Amino acid sequence: MTPAVDRRALLTLLLAFGLCGHPSAFAQAPDPLPSWNDGAVKKSITDFVARVTTQGGADFVPLDQRIATFDNDGTLWAEQPIYFQVQFALDRVKAMAPMHPEWKTREPFKTVLSGDVKALARLGEKGLLQVMAATHSGMTVEDFSKTVADWIAGARHPRFNRPYTDMIYQPMLELLAYLRANGFKTFIVSGGGIEFMRPWTEKVYGIPPEQVVGSSGVTKWQMGKDDKPSLLKEAKVEFIDDGPGKPVGINRFIGRRPVFAYGNSDGDQQMLEWTAAGAAARFMGIVHHDDAEREWAYDRQSHVGKLDKAWDEGLRRGWAITSMKRDWKVIFPFEK
Amino acid sequence: MTPAVDRRALLTLLLAFGLCGHPSAFAQAPDPLPSWNDGAVKKSITDFVARVTTQGGADFVPLDQRIATFDNDGTLWAEQPIYFQVQFALDRVKAMAPMHPEWKTREPFKTVLSGDVKALARLGEKGLLQVMAATHSGMTVEDFSKTVADWIAGARHPRFNRPYTDMIYQPMLELLAYLRANGFKTFIVSGGGIEFMRPWTEKVYGIPPEQVVGSSGVTKWQMGKDDKPSLLKEAKVEFIDDGPGKPVGINRFIGRRPVFAYGNSDGDQQMLEWTAAGAAARFMGIVHHDDAEREWAYDRQSHVGKLDKAWDEGLRRGWAITSMKRDWKVIFPFEK
Repeated sequence: MTPAVDRRALLTLLLAFGLCGHPSAFAQAPDPLPSWNDGAVKKSITDFVARVTTQGGADFVPLDQRIATFDNDGTLWAEQPIYFQVQFALDRVKAMAPMHPEWKTREPFKTVLSGDVKALARLGEKGLLQVMAATHSGMTVEDFSKTVADWIAGARHPRFNRPYTDMIYQPMLELLAYLRANGFKTFIVSGGGIEFMRPWTEKVYGIPPEQVVGSSGVTKWQMGKDDKPSLLKEAKVEFIDDGPGKPVGINRFIGRRPVFAYGNSDGDQQMLEWTAAGAAARFMGIVHHDDAEREWAYDRQSHVGKLDKAWDEGLRRGWAITSMKRDWKVIFPFEK
Repeated sequence: MTPAVDRRALLTLLLAFGLCGHPSAFAQAPDPLPSWNDGAVKKSITDFVARVTTQGGADFVPLDQRIATFDNDGTLWAEQPIYFQVQFALDRVKAMAPMHPEWKTREPFKTVLSGDVKALARLGEKGLLQVMAATHSGMTVEDFSKTVADWIAGARHPRFNRPYTDMIYQPMLELLAYLRANGFKTFIVSGGGIEFMRPWTEKVYGIPPEQVVGSSGVTKWQMGKDDKPSLLKEAKVEFIDDGPGKPVGINRFIGRRPVFAYGNSDGDQQMLEWTAAGAAARFMGIVHHDDAEREWAYDRQSHVGKLDKAWDEGLRRGWAITSMKRDWKVIFPFEK
């Protein structure tokens, strides 16, 4: 029976190695960030998470302080050729036009309805604000939410012919999940409209409405004659969650300073500075759009997501400048 | 062998009953609300929670929609003889007086410093707002937070000679824990200052800063010459989270309609109406302060926590009017 026992012992050994792998692979958990190329940025993320989650370590951050904030446009999803919320507003002008015959002759609506892309680009900030106001007010918050959900379900991106919610970054989805698995609470802090994001962020990013901070318009409570209350969206800006507004919004909505923040443009500079000025260990990241082939390449001169001052500051202060070309194996989930 | 098998079968049966208990005790878990007297209100709470958590039931509410909102002053903690935040402001005037010699001769500070209680009551809303502005602005958000934490740690309630954070309602602590154990996310939605509550709500109620909605002043981002940013509290009201402001605040901060709401005054009426107008199963409760012996008795004529219109509406619409005298076995945790 000895040879048989030996064979069994050998088999056991082989099985053990088969299950555990080579000794050097023994301690290796599955890569939590498989769409990130190995390199300085990926390493800085995993090193940071290891440091702040090591109980008793010098940089340990208690669970309740693991707050991570992410910009949305250009950080979690794309923002070219125009901010997706602007595309939503232009589509709404077309959809609402039959109820507004006067728009045929009134600017900026006339230009929007003409479909003349070059004229559209010349509308400027004033024209754009008028379009935003007309399409984002005059309805209840529920009706607006439903309109957004319908648009998100039906609209398609002009270059990729995909739903806009496919235009999200696979490496960032992995990063969100990785942070949450390590006890972080993940928030969106975006210049985009809070009520434009909330209808879909939970499904798409796993971020619930109450963890979404964004720009907003005034809403007004009214009690109907039928004893039914509603909140009406008014054509008045209440809060711009961009630039210096981001730390203000973080303080107002979250009430704690993030220890982890990611942005991609000058609009994120103050959020990153606010995070960087914290007392605990902290991580600041900037997505650099430098991949014209798989996504878009733009920075200092761009009309959307301009990255200029924040880039210089990030370089100076050693923030994790993330090259989409170099650091990301995959950009969009549909590439996999 | 048959007798032995029978004995084993019997033993199995006995063990099964032993593990499961008497049939009537079978369904009985430990009382989750031991400080609530048995009665209609307690039953309406436990019935509601059973209904919305029964998978497949007609009133089942998915986890992500289990949003519960609570007023703070008079609902989670006491508010007599004056709102605790007002007491904080008066104490701050005294503490800050050495740095403001001009207050000795300038109203309303002169009256506050005089300690003349009757004159204090005559200050009126304008005087009170001046006191609030002087004590709640001109510092960074961190410095204010520290000041609040210090005050909360040291100040004592005049009647009970207890820290203010002892003046919380034991039945409500149990209710918060019971709801959370059943998958609810609990929020404070208070007319009180958001930055006055956040420094202690997590420790006292288990409600983290980002689940606290309240009134707020404007904060301003500034970058110091030392490259250090700060958020400065300005003497400008930004948002009053009271009355019609409560549903507005809920929509802004939470972005979902509550299915469970508790208040105690007319300032909570619109929050309760907003909750009541939801499509899903919902619960609306009002704490009625009717126990002068153990706490205070006040309602329609009170200068704090006036309960008049909301009471009538609650009676008309069948909301759970909670008598502190009748429904609560214990008021404060220190009675136990």
